[in-house]
Amino acid sequence: MESIKKSELGNWLAFYLCKGLGVTTLIRLQRKVQLSQLTSIPYNQLLEFGLSTKISQNLINTDWSYINKVIDFISERNIHVFCYFDNQYPEPLKQIASPPLLLFCKGRVDLLSTPQIAMVGSRSATPNGLSTASELAYELVENGLTVTSGLALGIDGAAHKGALASHGHTIAVLGTGIDLVYPKRHGILFEKIKQKGLLVSEFLPGTKPQASNFPRRNRIISGLSLGVVVVEAEIKSGSLITTKYALEQNREVFAVPGSIHSSLSQGCHFLIKQGAKLIENVDDILEEVSIFPKSCLYTNREQEKNKDDDPILEQLGFEVTPVDVIAQRVQLPIEQILPRLLDLELEDKIERVIDGYIKLRRC
Amino acid sequence: MESIKKSELGNWLAFYLCKGLGVTTLIRLQRKVQLSQLTSIPYNQLLEFGLSTKISQNLINTDWSYINKVIDFISERNIHVFCYFDNQYPEPLKQIASPPLLLFCKGRVDLLSTPQIAMVGSRSATPNGLSTASELAYELVENGLTVTSGLALGIDGAAHKGALASHGHTIAVLGTGIDLVYPKRHGILFEKIKQKGLLVSEFLPGTKPQASNFPRRNRIISGLSLGVVVVEAEIKSGSLITTKYALEQNREVFAVPGSIHSSLSQGCHFLIKQGAKLIENVDDILEEVSIFPKSCLYTNREQEKNKDDDPILEQLGFEVTPVDVIAQRVQLPIEQILPRLLDLELEDKIERVIDGYIKLRRC
Repeated sequence: MESIKKSELGNWLAFYLCKGLGVTTLIRLQRKVQLSQLTSIPYNQLLEFGLSTKISQNLINTDWSYINKVIDFISERNIHVFCYFDNQYPEPLKQIASPPLLLFCKGRVDLLSTPQIAMVGSRSATPNGLSTASELAYELVENGLTVTSGLALGIDGAAHKGALASHGHTIAVLGTGIDLVYPKRHGILFEKIKQKGLLVSEFLPGTKPQASNFPRRNRIISGLSLGVVVVEAEIKSGSLITTKYALEQNREVFAVPGSIHSSLSQGCHFLIKQGAKLIENVDDILEEVSIFPKSCLYTNREQEKNKDDDPILEQLGFEVTPVDVIAQRVQLPIEQILPRLLDLELEDKIERVIDGYIKLRRC
Repeated sequence: MESIKKSELGNWLAFYLCKGLGVTTLIRLQRKVQLSQLTSIPYNQLLEFGLSTKISQNLINTDWSYINKVIDFISERNIHVFCYFDNQYPEPLKQIASPPLLLFCKGRVDLLSTPQIAMVGSRSATPNGLSTASELAYELVENGLTVTSGLALGIDGAAHKGALASHGHTIAVLGTGIDLVYPKRHGILFEKIKQKGLLVSEFLPGTKPQASNFPRRNRIISGLSLGVVVVEAEIKSGSLITTKYALEQNREVFAVPGSIHSSLSQGCHFLIKQGAKLIENVDDILEEVSIFPKSCLYTNREQEKNKDDDPILEQLGFEVTPVDVIAQRVQLPIEQILPRLLDLELEDKIERVIDGYIKLRRC
């Protein structure tokens, strides 16, 4: 898969930067004129094509020197750009109400066209919630799906990590430019996804975090996916915005239940009451979205049980283990096990949580 | 409400004891002959009415001396008997596939005709599950409904206790004769229900516990009710038999969700996947079954917040508190607080669970 040519890119960026000119207008214009010629057309002719005076003026006044700088920046950093009118633009995203004109991508761009499941949830999830997200993401990737999320703290991060622990088929849709790490605490995760997965953003490289960009970004997370899994979410949360988009986009919504006494399960319970599918395991998801015969989906599973030969890793499970308990179990002082714990964390084999560590599944 | 007259009772008992003669046949016969005359009709005429030779023979050979003994037994113990053909027989139970011909009752027989919600679940429920059942039952009764269950250990018992902690509107449908306490551990609860609620059985007084009678009894629990609430149940459990009956009887099924890692929530999750309504609180139930205007349902709620003035009761909440913690908090030796804890338990203000005590709501 190749990104669009530099010459075309200039035009797409001109449209992208032209205030008021969106995908819907461009689709309409495409019937009357070749879009590649649009930036060379005089003002009066633009008006004849039905563009407003404002949009026509904006287009005439395109700042080509800025666009050339952007193109250089993108090219130097090996950022791929896909345009809505490009054949390689992901088909499911074309179907949504307001698809982004451009997708800036970094990493394995082939993942864009793979079948995806979105996973979202609370930034302040419980260790159990994190473990569930990681487990489900791992299993989804093992079963041939790509896990798409938003690189946020909490469930998003756990979902990406679970996917990385399998074949790494994960897409992080950012609310910032593709070249900015946000949140900062996810620096290592950002790098891992760039290497093994894919970073995607509709915002120009260099775009800093702005509160309004994050909810908007959520329509891409659900738009790219066959369905959205919610693991722990409060009633009023970004996760529920994503599911709202998912429903509008006719995508499946899956929710993991929990205690009726936990506010972090209220969002999931609300969704189930509204008709989302209650899920307990990966099979509950596969049942609804299986695009392959189920026998095929399961072929990777047999190889998963490799015995861990690291003595520290052996002490960890999917429930939180405090550092002092690990130290006690391996009979070593804490100072000696901390560096090894850090290594294991960087290898995506374990996850650091508030009260200790949990193990992540390995491929 | 009065139970049927002794003279009629003899006939009903004759039918009840006549092997092969069920409610369906009696309904058919009723069109041809007055049922009260059926026991005086000669064998040949019974055959003419379409009864089989076997049933006709059984009926001719009715053991009237045994029936008279049963009538004496029932009368001495103030047991009320309601027959299917009686006006006071509960209407919802008439609608089910195989309604019991007779209901033996002890206690507040007026509760039979009140709108009921059944509550069922695991015999080995968690403290959280027990607390949820008690709370929901309490709230249901506060809102004008009667809570019907099966007097079993676990969720059944917690449901009855929660109802007793309110106005006591609770019905225990037994799998034994109405005069037998089963399980033995529910002796006090049995007495309380007899005083403030209602005991019901389709089995003759004196019928000992038999495994096959319990699942069959479940059709009455759901049959009497507008809907069935399941609080913690494993996939293969008696609770799921009750919900199967409920669905056949076109009753609502409600299920309380929980952790996907708990086998005691699997039954509830299974039901929700099948279409049962996920419930988090009493409002979720009232929404579906409200027979009164909602404003009226809520009138009792305002009075519920009475401050507990018992120092031990003040130390207890709806989560389990171990005895030693209670002792520490009230600064008294355990031997001194145990008698008071027993009193509070008998007053249905607290509940003893595996690791300590939980508080029940008071009216």
